[in-house]
Order: sequence, then C-alpha cells, then structure tokens
Amino acid sequence: MKKRVTIALAIAAATSLFADAPAAGDALIKKAKAAGLAPIPSDKAALMKLIDNPKNPITDAKVELGKKLYFDPRLSKSNLISCNTCHNLAIGGVDGVPAAIGHHWTANPHHLNSPTVYNAVFMSRQFWDGRSPDLEDQAQGPMQAAPEMAITKEMAVERISSMPAYKEMFKEAYGSDEITFKKIADTIGTFERTLVTPSPFDKFLEGDANALTDAQKEGLKTFIDKGCASCHTGVGLGGSMQPFPVAKPYKYANVGDFKGDKNGMVKVPTLRNITETAPYFHNGAVWSLSEAIKIMGETQLGMDLTNKEVASIKTFLTSLTGKKPEVVYPILPPVTEKTPKPITK
Amino acid sequence: MKKRVTIALAIAAATSLFADAPAAGDALIKKAKAAGLAPIPSDKAALMKLIDNPKNPITDAKVELGKKLYFDPRLSKSNLISCNTCHNLAIGGVDGVPAAIGHHWTANPHHLNSPTVYNAVFMSRQFWDGRSPDLEDQAQGPMQAAPEMAITKEMAVERISSMPAYKEMFKEAYGSDEITFKKIADTIGTFERTLVTPSPFDKFLEGDANALTDAQKEGLKTFIDKGCASCHTGVGLGGSMQPFPVAKPYKYANVGDFKGDKNGMVKVPTLRNITETAPYFHNGAVWSLSEAIKIMGETQLGMDLTNKEVASIKTFLTSLTGKKPEVVYPILPPVTEKTPKPITK
Repeated sequence: MKKRVTIALAIAAATSLFADAPAAGDALIKKAKAAGLAPIPSDKAALMKLIDNPKNPITDAKVELGKKLYFDPRLSKSNLISCNTCHNLAIGGVDGVPAAIGHHWTANPHHLNSPTVYNAVFMSRQFWDGRSPDLEDQAQGPMQAAPEMAITKEMAVERISSMPAYKEMFKEAYGSDEITFKKIADTIGTFERTLVTPSPFDKFLEGDANALTDAQKEGLKTFIDKGCASCHTGVGLGGSMQPFPVAKPYKYANVGDFKGDKNGMVKVPTLRNITETAPYFHNGAVWSLSEAIKIMGETQLGMDLTNKEVASIKTFLTSLTGKKPEVVYPILPPVTEKTPKPITK
Repeated sequence: MKKRVTIALAIAAATSLFADAPAAGDALIKKAKAAGLAPIPSDKAALMKLIDNPKNPITDAKVELGKKLYFDPRLSKSNLISCNTCHNLAIGGVDGVPAAIGHHWTANPHHLNSPTVYNAVFMSRQFWDGRSPDLEDQAQGPMQAAPEMAITKEMAVERISSMPAYKEMFKEAYGSDEITFKKIADTIGTFERTLVTPSPFDKFLEGDANALTDAQKEGLKTFIDKGCASCHTGVGLGGSMQPFPVAKPYKYANVGDFKGDKNGMVKVPTLRNITETAPYFHNGAVWSLSEAIKIMGETQLGMDLTNKEVASIKTFLTSLTGKKPEVVYPILPPVTEKTPKPITK
C-alpha cells in the first residue's frame, strides 16, 4: 500500500511539475487563448481588418494628415497643446502625471489620468466612463474640453483651413478640400488606429513558445489562475466596461470624484506597455506597478496576492512592452495672416 | 544734340535694365557676398566645421542622446514641458505665441518671444540680451528658469540618472555613465547644432543663379540696397548684438519691459524660416511679416519703405525657408520607481 501511494504521489508530482514546466509552453498558449487573450496579428491583412473603421477607412493620406493634426498645437486655443501633449508617443502614449493638465494649467476636474493612446484602438469604448464608442468620436472631446485644448469647433476649422497646405492634404485624403471639425477628429482617429505595439507576448500567442522567458510564463499562469484575465483580456488586455471596485473599496477612492458611468462601470485600462504608463488607475494615484497589482487583487478579486505572486504577475506584464511604430516628427504648415491668433488667457 | 541725349538715355536705360535683369544673377551673388551674406555650406565637411564645438565635439551618439533629452518632458519640474514645447521643431522651431509660456502657465516675465532653435548655431550669442555664448550654455537656462521648465540641476540629474537606458546612452556618448547637469545641457546643445535648414538662398550663394526667382532676386537687391544686410548678415542672417531701436522708437516698446543688454544691445534674430516664425520681435508684438519689415525700416534704417519695397523684401525672405532635418520622434526611457515624481504645483 505504501508503495502504491508513493508511486501515486510521484506521478502527481511529476504531472504537476510537467504542468508548471516551461516546456509546457504550448499548453500555456492554449490556456491563454482559452482565457480570451489574443495577439496583435503579425499578418498585416489580419491586423488591418482588426484596426480599420469601415465608416472611416484607413488610407495612407489620412494617416499622414492625421499624424500632422495629432502633433499640431494650433488645434488648441493657446497654440501650445496638442493631442501629443497628454498622449505623448515618446513616453508610452501618456503624460506621466497623475491627472491631465491642460489649457491655462487646469487639472482635470475629476482628477482623471490620461490613458495611453497606444493600442487604444483595441478598447471597445473610449474615456474612463466609456462614453465614446471609438477613437474618431473620442478625438472630438479633448480638443473642445475647457481644461484640455479648449478650442471651439469653429476656431479649429478656421485655424486649419487658413493654412493652404492643410487644404491640399484634406483634398488628397477626402477628395475635397472642405474641412470640418468631424473630419479633423476622424483623421486624428485614423492615425491613432495605427498606433499598435506588438510585443513578445504576441509572438508567444501566435505559437512561439520561446518568446516569453520561463519567469514570464510562470507569471502569465498566475495572471490567468488568479482571474486577472477575466477583465484584462482580448487583444487589448482591457477595454471593456467593468464594475470597479468589486470586492473591497479602492484605497485611493478619495482622490478625485470619479465614480464610473451611470452604472458605476469603469473602462478596464490596457495592460500593454503598462511598465511605461505610470502612474496607474483612473486617478493616477499609484506609481508602483507592484502596488497596483496588489490593489487589483484586493478590489477586484477579493484576494491578498502574496509578494511572490505580485512579482510574478509583474514579470509577465513586462512581456507586454511592445515595439512602437516609427513616427517621423512632422513639419507642419505655417500659419498665415488669416490664421486666428492664439488665446493664452 | 537731341539725338545724342536720346542715345545716352537709351544706353542708360539699357544698362539699368541689364543691371536689374535676372541674367545678372552672378553679379547679385557677388553683391550679396560682399554684403557679408554667406551660405549654409552644402559640403558636409565645411558644414561640420562651421557647426561643431571643439569643446564639445559633435558625435552621432551625442546627437541621438541630445535629441532624446530635447524632447524629454521629464526635464521639467512638472513632467509636461520639454525644450521642444517652446522651440517646436514642427512649427519653425518656435511656439507660435507672443511670449513664452512655461511652468504653471507662467508667461515670460519680460514678455520675451521664444527664438527659433533652427539655425541658432549660427548666432554669435544666445538669448535676446546675448548673455550666453553658445547653445550648450544656453540650454542650461530654460531648464532651470522658474517660468519655463522650472527644474533644479539636482532634480534634472536625479530624474535622468534614475532611468537605466539613459545611463547606457551617456556611457556611449561620453565613455562614462556619470550624468551631470552640464552634460545634459551640453548634449542638448549638440543636437541643436545639427538643426540647420539649407534653403534656395544657399544654393544661390553657392553659385546657382537660378535658385532664386526673378522676384526673389529683385527682393534681395532691395534688401541689400536698403541696408538690411548690415545687421541681418552672415550665415545666420542675424545673430550679432546691435542697438535697437536706432532711428525711431519701436512702436510696441510698451509690450513687456525688455531693454536689451546693459548697453541697450539686442540680439539680431535670424531671418532664416522667417515666414514660419511669427509673431515677430523680441516681444512677439507683430504677426504680419510685412509690418515687421516696415517697422525695421523705420526703427533701424530711419526710412519709410514703400509697400512695393516691403513686398519685394518679403518675397526675398521666402527664399530663406529651408529644408528641416528629418527627426524620428524618439521613444524615451520609461521612468522607474526611483524617478523623482513630477511636481505640477
């Protein structure tokens, strides 16, 4: 009897070892896919299908024009703030401050943190309260918001229309040089759709079991087993609306007054490039990624993750740091004497 | 007698026609050179000799690192302002507002306009009052100035040193990973030295008489004949310290309180890319280039330029709009948990 038990234990141990072993990469890929995690496709046609907007199809002309508009500070009342100010492509697509700061150094009134623009195309909703369905719609908001770029639709159109080179670019992109606020935002949205950052994790999900280190694989397993992937899932590892907090109150709920949408739902932020987008949470209250993981365990999963588990999950998250698209800094059309002047007050 | 006079007049007219004719491009090149105007050399070795700093020689590693630092908003107290905020390479190397606006939306206390960084290497002094001898020295100022980037030397060094990728880049650039404030500024200066913009006027000065249109040549002649080139001269078409105003008071002297250096001397701004760097003058009080030319005639040359002369000079100035170097927008090292946090107050 003793022998049988010993053998059974040995088999169990071996099975367990086998299940945990790095060699089981293929099984882990399967497990990750079963958990809903999905790659940024390396196949260009598949990627295009995923990021395109049938109502506003991506074209080279729109991407190039959208890039110019994205970087153009003349789209702000002051001439000083561009989309890139708060969603800075140099630093993870964010601004590196807890709450966004805009026109006249006004902080976001709800103390909301600027989400990254990288991979935002994979989010099913935009804004922390999910009030916007897509990037084209989203882009209209910050331009007009008083504490952000603070421009009116009319002044935005008048500024851009006053520069002949922009008129030509709109003609090339849309077949007509008529410039509308919607077209400006649509074009910015088109550029933003191209800002995706494939990472080692995508190679892994596409079948390269060696794309992750053993420690990253271990972390991925923990990530899935603990339930993180129930919200941080899909291509974006986030992007859906979910209740927050679920199990316990959020420790820094007193920073700002954001309570989610009318049902208390909050958009799940992407985990892609998460090592580059501190500070964390909707109110940017947490600078440490380890602390952020620990808080998520408490508030969303109702569990105290051990330091080892936190460290392991964090190691997995490093595999989500992706390659940023190369962006040549644009040379923008110069203002003319017709261009409405900046208002810095 | 009548016949002789007629012939004499005919010869005079022909000579005058000949002198003004586009065919006289070579003579005009000579005239321009005699007036002290000089090209950005198309020969790379000659250019390098002109822009290099023997005390801080240009190397690829320094230029690449300097570019990163130039675009890095973590070099400001708030994490929100980079060198590029006020000297934006997308819009002529300036900010497009009358007076610079920096930390906490503070306007320059003297209502001083941000000069362009393009071709600043050709200025013999830096800052409007010429208090700085070169770009390396200049770069130290705005980082520390309270109404600009508002960071201390210590915090700048601590921020940059906290990011391992920066340590590696300093090691590559300087052979040691020790980071000092001086090295940060020196490296930014090195990058700025490369920001030169050859234009049709340079081709012309180098001997291609057809590089300017007939109207531009006519404008150049007026520019020289009226005396503009006595200050706007050299490779930079500006950059020396000169008295201002000379002949008549400056119409907008009441905007701000800048009176020049201790001798009332003001740095002559470059005319390169002048069509892209409105508003004009040290206090950014003038948006119209035509008005700026007219004011210069009055204040500096003591003459009322006719509208035709103003238009002609303006036409010449369009030949100074140059080709900007291609700059790939940098991906910056991410902050670490050791990086000092932004202070937006």
